[in-house]
Amino acid sequence: MSHVIFHYTLSCPENLVKKRSESLLLEQTIELSRKALFDTWVKEHIVGEIVKLEQIGDDMFSLSIAQPLRTTALDPAQLLNVAFGNSSLQPDVTLDLIEPPSELFGRMPGPQFGIDGLRTKLGVPHRALTCTALKPMGLSADRMAQLAYDFAIAGLNMIKDDHGLADHEFCPFESRVEQCQKAVQKANAETGGSTIYVPNLIGSPSTVYRQMVFAKQAGVGAVMISPLLVGPALLHELTSGKAGLPILAHPALGGGRMAPEALLGQIFKWFGADAVIYPHMGGRFSYSRETCLRLASLIRATDHGMRAALPVPAGGIKTSRVREVLEFYGLQTILLVGGSLLEAGGRLVEKTREFISEVAQVSNELSIQKEQTP
Amino acid sequence: MSHVIFHYTLSCPENLVKKRSESLLLEQTIELSRKALFDTWVKEHIVGEIVKLEQIGDDMFSLSIAQPLRTTALDPAQLLNVAFGNSSLQPDVTLDLIEPPSELFGRMPGPQFGIDGLRTKLGVPHRALTCTALKPMGLSADRMAQLAYDFAIAGLNMIKDDHGLADHEFCPFESRVEQCQKAVQKANAETGGSTIYVPNLIGSPSTVYRQMVFAKQAGVGAVMISPLLVGPALLHELTSGKAGLPILAHPALGGGRMAPEALLGQIFKWFGADAVIYPHMGGRFSYSRETCLRLASLIRATDHGMRAALPVPAGGIKTSRVREVLEFYGLQTILLVGGSLLEAGGRLVEKTREFISEVAQVSNELSIQKEQTP
Repeated sequence: MSHVIFHYTLSCPENLVKKRSESLLLEQTIELSRKALFDTWVKEHIVGEIVKLEQIGDDMFSLSIAQPLRTTALDPAQLLNVAFGNSSLQPDVTLDLIEPPSELFGRMPGPQFGIDGLRTKLGVPHRALTCTALKPMGLSADRMAQLAYDFAIAGLNMIKDDHGLADHEFCPFESRVEQCQKAVQKANAETGGSTIYVPNLIGSPSTVYRQMVFAKQAGVGAVMISPLLVGPALLHELTSGKAGLPILAHPALGGGRMAPEALLGQIFKWFGADAVIYPHMGGRFSYSRETCLRLASLIRATDHGMRAALPVPAGGIKTSRVREVLEFYGLQTILLVGGSLLEAGGRLVEKTREFISEVAQVSNELSIQKEQTP
Repeated sequence: MSHVIFHYTLSCPENLVKKRSESLLLEQTIELSRKALFDTWVKEHIVGEIVKLEQIGDDMFSLSIAQPLRTTALDPAQLLNVAFGNSSLQPDVTLDLIEPPSELFGRMPGPQFGIDGLRTKLGVPHRALTCTALKPMGLSADRMAQLAYDFAIAGLNMIKDDHGLADHEFCPFESRVEQCQKAVQKANAETGGSTIYVPNLIGSPSTVYRQMVFAKQAGVGAVMISPLLVGPALLHELTSGKAGLPILAHPALGGGRMAPEALLGQIFKWFGADAVIYPHMGGRFSYSRETCLRLASLIRATDHGMRAALPVPAGGIKTSRVREVLEFYGLQTILLVGGSLLEAGGRLVEKTREFISEVAQVSNELSIQKEQTP
């Protein structure tokens, strides 16, 4: 059987690094020292091996461990476990990236819609896609619906709930979804557009399922979940149940020592997200330029026969940064701008239109440049 | 409505700390700057306030934010979101502890069994409880059952699966549970003991539910899950569904900047764990003495009308450390010893018996000392 290779960075004195690497290798599967390991089959078929150990700085090492694929049981939760279950509790190690064999994905096909499916639904074949978030938490369902209407009239592609909108008494999930969806449909009827509303599903698994069914019946175009809040394996289950709705994944609670590349770029996609939101550099979070580029590339990747998904750089992006962001990411991108549209107050529709036309214009320029590039 | 107070540690230059605290406050709920906040009701009923900001070191601050309880929607996933959703992505902040009002727990009653329920099931009213883990991953179901039998014959209170035991082809969940449970029952019949077997449930939510039902029908005494692998809110749902089995919570994937006190000591218990496993100091993880003491105290706490749960210090504890660990934690403790029993090889039953009798003897001494203390 084939192997999954897990890439870690290890902070460790040089004279201890071999011992530390060995302990990490064993920690993720058998959780036992070799001297307590009496079984030959286990030694040969379960215990992984160190395939790279390279010094990359003072007391810093790049470590790659190949674990037999069978240890993951081809299960999403167990994959996380073998990758970073116990080792996440050890502050000297970060999980950087996972290098899986294609066999892992037999039962884990990733995005159900992906870039192509989402673009078809939105009727936007080429240019970068636009998105905003309904906020602030605390507005009533009809106020949210009014906002959604304004944004849809302006012509955004996607209007999503802020990830903090739950089933609050002051804005219950069902009435919010019904009213926002109706508002967006009304705007679409008036403009001939095809804006979609994307409600946030949050709660325990049965609540999320109930919300998913309700949202689908209400006719929404996609849904959003925060996999670490509701359970990463629930994301997988929502897609494997052929839910029939594209899923945006939100990174809430995703900090810690699992690198964004591994968690957001790989895991969220593998579990079925069609679009993955992450903090863009220069906003109020701290991802580097390189991390952002790698995230976009991982989210769009089509290896292992998986659909490409859409990167959704977000987190304090201003409308004034459209050109910069698009030049950075290209057109296979959802531009998520929230607060900076809401700051416009009474000029919200106008400002949103300016944003959309800026996206269209820059998309256009970038397409032409691309065609002219030999 | 009352407030939940979230306590954070913030690493920030002194001249920026007011601004940074304000941004953290807003990040967790409205995700909007005050200048884009036009609604009076939201200002008064949703936006929280900073209730403490204290310098605790060079560029280090202790920050406490009171958020209106209504922002949590009294939902477990949303509680995590307001506590540390987006801010978990910001490396300058750690969530240290949560100070909830009792109203939070109306729909979140915590452990269904707790210390008393577990002790009744095990027939051990006073002394410290003993536990081991079936491992290594890779043994077949009948080999695991043989191990379980030996441990039960020796008289351990609880025999749990290692948290890496999933539904592997080489040791399928159902046959493992059936065989281990039978083995433990057989041993109990022979010894008159009441050892329980505790299988590990892992997978997507529907898988975990299926496993829970199967385990219950097989007659197991409790189950274990890793809430961050299978979804923290699933833990809550398993208990609120009146599953009728005590639940052990495992910390896998729980590293990162949510302090163990908040995640393991509070969240896991609030969501319903009857016993919480965590790395004891001096093993192969790095929790401090103070963290371990605080964890034990939080897990056992009975505030908010909640049942006390059992701390399960673990992670490389040797049988030779029984006295030290019990003197440290007292008797309301499950002693989880794994690898160090398995190292005994052919002397496993004997070594396990020595471990158990050591626990009994030290428990006894500690009880007597306690009675004699005026």
